[in-house]
Amino acid sequence: MPDIHLAEPPGTPPRPPRRHLLAIADLTRGDVERILDTARALSRSLDRDVKKLPTLRGRTIVHLFYESSTRTLASFELAAKRLSADTMSLRSSGSSVDKGESLKDTALTLDAYDPDVIVIRHPSIGAPQLVARMTEAHVVNAGDGKHQHPTQALLDLYTMRDALGRLDGLQVAVVGDVLHSRVARSLVQALSLVGARSLLVGPPTLVPRGVEAMGCDVSFDIDAIRDADVVYVLRMQRERMEEGAAFVPSLREYTARWGITPERVRTSQVVMHPGPMNRGVEIDPAVADSDAALVTEQVRSGLVVRMAVLYDLLTTGPVRAAVPLEVA
Amino acid sequence: MPDIHLAEPPGTPPRPPRRHLLAIADLTRGDVERILDTARALSRSLDRDVKKLPTLRGRTIVHLFYESSTRTLASFELAAKRLSADTMSLRSSGSSVDKGESLKDTALTLDAYDPDVIVIRHPSIGAPQLVARMTEAHVVNAGDGKHQHPTQALLDLYTMRDALGRLDGLQVAVVGDVLHSRVARSLVQALSLVGARSLLVGPPTLVPRGVEAMGCDVSFDIDAIRDADVVYVLRMQRERMEEGAAFVPSLREYTARWGITPERVRTSQVVMHPGPMNRGVEIDPAVADSDAALVTEQVRSGLVVRMAVLYDLLTTGPVRAAVPLEVA
Amino acid sequence: MPDIHLAEPPGTPPRPPRRHLLAIADLTRGDVERILDTARALSRSLDRDVKKLPTLRGRTIVHLFYESSTRTLASFELAAKRLSADTMSLRSSGSSVDKGESLKDTALTLDAYDPDVIVIRHPSIGAPQLVARMTEAHVVNAGDGKHQHPTQALLDLYTMRDALGRLDGLQVAVVGDVLHSRVARSLVQALSLVGARSLLVGPPTLVPRGVEAMGCDVSFDIDAIRDADVVYVLRMQRERMEEGAAFVPSLREYTARWGITPERVRTSQVVMHPGPMNRGVEIDPAVADSDAALVTEQVRSGLVVRMAVLYDLLTTGPVRAAVPLEVA
Repeated sequence: MPDIHLAEPPGTPPRPPRRHLLAIADLTRGDVERILDTARALSRSLDRDVKKLPTLRGRTIVHLFYESSTRTLASFELAAKRLSADTMSLRSSGSSVDKGESLKDTALTLDAYDPDVIVIRHPSIGAPQLVARMTEAHVVNAGDGKHQHPTQALLDLYTMRDALGRLDGLQVAVVGDVLHSRVARSLVQALSLVGARSLLVGPPTLVPRGVEAMGCDVSFDIDAIRDADVVYVLRMQRERMEEGAAFVPSLREYTARWGITPERVRTSQVVMHPGPMNRGVEIDPAVADSDAALVTEQVRSGLVVRMAVLYDLLTTGPVRAAVPLEVA
Repeated sequence: MPDIHLAEPPGTPPRPPRRHLLAIADLTRGDVERILDTARALSRSLDRDVKKLPTLRGRTIVHLFYESSTRTLASFELAAKRLSADTMSLRSSGSSVDKGESLKDTALTLDAYDPDVIVIRHPSIGAPQLVARMTEAHVVNAGDGKHQHPTQALLDLYTMRDALGRLDGLQVAVVGDVLHSRVARSLVQALSLVGARSLLVGPPTLVPRGVEAMGCDVSFDIDAIRDADVVYVLRMQRERMEEGAAFVPSLREYTARWGITPERVRTSQVVMHPGPMNRGVEIDPAVADSDAALVTEQVRSGLVVRMAVLYDLLTTGPVRAAVPLEVA
Repeated sequence: MPDIHLAEPPGTPPRPPRRHLLAIADLTRGDVERILDTARALSRSLDRDVKKLPTLRGRTIVHLFYESSTRTLASFELAAKRLSADTMSLRSSGSSVDKGESLKDTALTLDAYDPDVIVIRHPSIGAPQLVARMTEAHVVNAGDGKHQHPTQALLDLYTMRDALGRLDGLQVAVVGDVLHSRVARSLVQALSLVGARSLLVGPPTLVPRGVEAMGCDVSFDIDAIRDADVVYVLRMQRERMEEGAAFVPSLREYTARWGITPERVRTSQVVMHPGPMNRGVEIDPAVADSDAALVTEQVRSGLVVRMAVLYDLLTTGPVRAAVPLEVA
């Protein structure tokens, strides 16, 4: 049997101390700004004909998705591939029985493969934290129950800054089903971190009581969105519509009272939506297709922000200068 | 935050003007011949031990499949990988509600990632055209409803030319369920384009009235296949069999009257089938396994023809000479 | 149309004569030892920061899985990617009708793509042999019905040798549902091949009569595991539990009589399980999480053993020295 020469290629940076992206609350304002700046630098690679960067060649990124989410998974996978990392995707419908135990054993199994990053989406709050405890990998929370979706919040900040030139002092109205939305929860925290202000707008049944403690304002009047720089429309889950009376009297009435129509948007405002949109429900197609809508920009931001998050986790301060060729 | 150097690697060819492969009707005879010649050149790569070519390194090809089709998807994915492109596959069962709208938003989402090529299979006629309008990508139609399946027609032409040495003047009998077949529709047009002649053979319930206007002959007598150079057997969809009397009186009777048996094939003829075969239904196993059958050759042709289509879309006339090393 | 230069890159080794990994019975003791030694050499690559080796660059490995098995598939895919091979995965639920015929046509279709290796998992015994006959590829059996799972046996041997320093003379107690287990069948043969001894322990309903002919001992008393160096716990299939009385009187009783608890394991013993574990059924969580358990080591061994199997099939004796850079 031959010997195998396993010397590190010259110039390979040492592995940085383990870090994660589990929740917006774990980040400093400096962290957020560094990630957004990295994303902006990486975004220039998207203007090239050949968009792939060699930055993470030989790294392994596992996507562990317990909820079906073609769009988010595709965005993460493409981000990894654009950085030349190898990817492995594991999807599970996730039976309810022994879910905790099976996640633990799955984490241990994955850890045996020693991946560099595990990106996890899971219906249970705290699942990413569990995986972070059980493995040596960097863990990215791609959505855990109603709790957090931090890369969505970061891509939303990136989109706002790109469109409006600033974040500090920005007024953002978040409209719709705040109660069930991990997007809203992460976004409000992230806006607060960077000096922006959020106003939650929706029917009382869909806005959690006491949410003002998170540092935001609340209104039960759709006209309150008029003073915002950004109208951020939440997706109305079909399940919630069908559940019926408990949350909204009827779909038609929800649309009439809370749907974002051209009449409700001022020309100075931009409109955002995490997708996929229910056209004609929470957002009027005329708004969705207007120049005010930044929905496509959000998707594009998602790619570069996720590239930036992977880059940020797998390289670190002093090392960064040592990554050759594509980042100097 | 470091600067990121995004200069194009030296020698990178400029991106060619946008083109698509949506339907055979969009092609000239010259286009078809150029693609088949490219495929033949690429086919020599399959004789190498290492079959991968660096031609499309750094390109991103998205496969958007709204119908399950393991075989066609695998063929496209492998074609892209053999040319070193990165691939992303999105599958959807495609609910019937708001399908048009959701395809539009999906196209806009994909466009935000700026892929080089989108390969789409969709149950609705015209879906590839919609995606071509909504995105900046090159779009390849991998089957839209009963309408078109152009790469199948091209691989069939390639297989015929390879086996019989010519296309001009060839007589091709297409047998079976022409009515529901996008394969038949594309093939008849493609044969006409290159100077071959097609004869549609099947029960009157499965051959569309007035189809002669496409420039082909029709016969309701299986013995009419005797004069053809090629017997092209269409797949009998199980759904159609189960639908029963409207289309075919019974499976057994269909096989007796229209099944391709050794007795019905002359020794000078070749037999083709787009796969997967229903052995014992539209084709007798003894024919499927005979030297006359080109079914495996068709699969192999599918790989090189799809490689050629991607190559043809992503490189162009004067640029072609500049692609180094593997194509000079 | 341009010419395409298809000269082999300098130093490319010639393709070795075709070999397969279909069943443990096909291997010599020398084969097993060579694979385990190769795996040990490759395992050192896992300590590197960049774990990818260029060994199989440009090779195509197809994973054809007719049974859902996220874990085994992920292990094979990662093994291929760590060696820089391209992978294509085809999954099928595999209808019972015409399964033989459809596997034959699928094999012919795959062969048209000329893959280097086909890794197949199939519910029918002998499916891998069929694919080996129908294609030019190297075939690896990733589990066929109740018959064989040879890479599992090899990774188990690797794990034992790594933990205990030897295989010759080792005593291994295999506990549980031997009757339905391809893992047990392969393992007993492999242990016998390398001079170790196996003892099958379980209820008479779950141990096949006459199994001693395979060269192992049998006991219907759980206390018999006390003399073993290794306690190998088989997974209790939920289907078997639900089938009820025919095989086990009740789940609770099975656990009481055959479950591996801390009381039943001596401190000198190691415990293994092919995963995924039913914690609290065949294995007590306290055992699963103890230092005696080698379950995570088995997963890690699976990766390097599957890398070694691919390496062993695609390179060969005198050629091995010619594979440059990473293996000298």
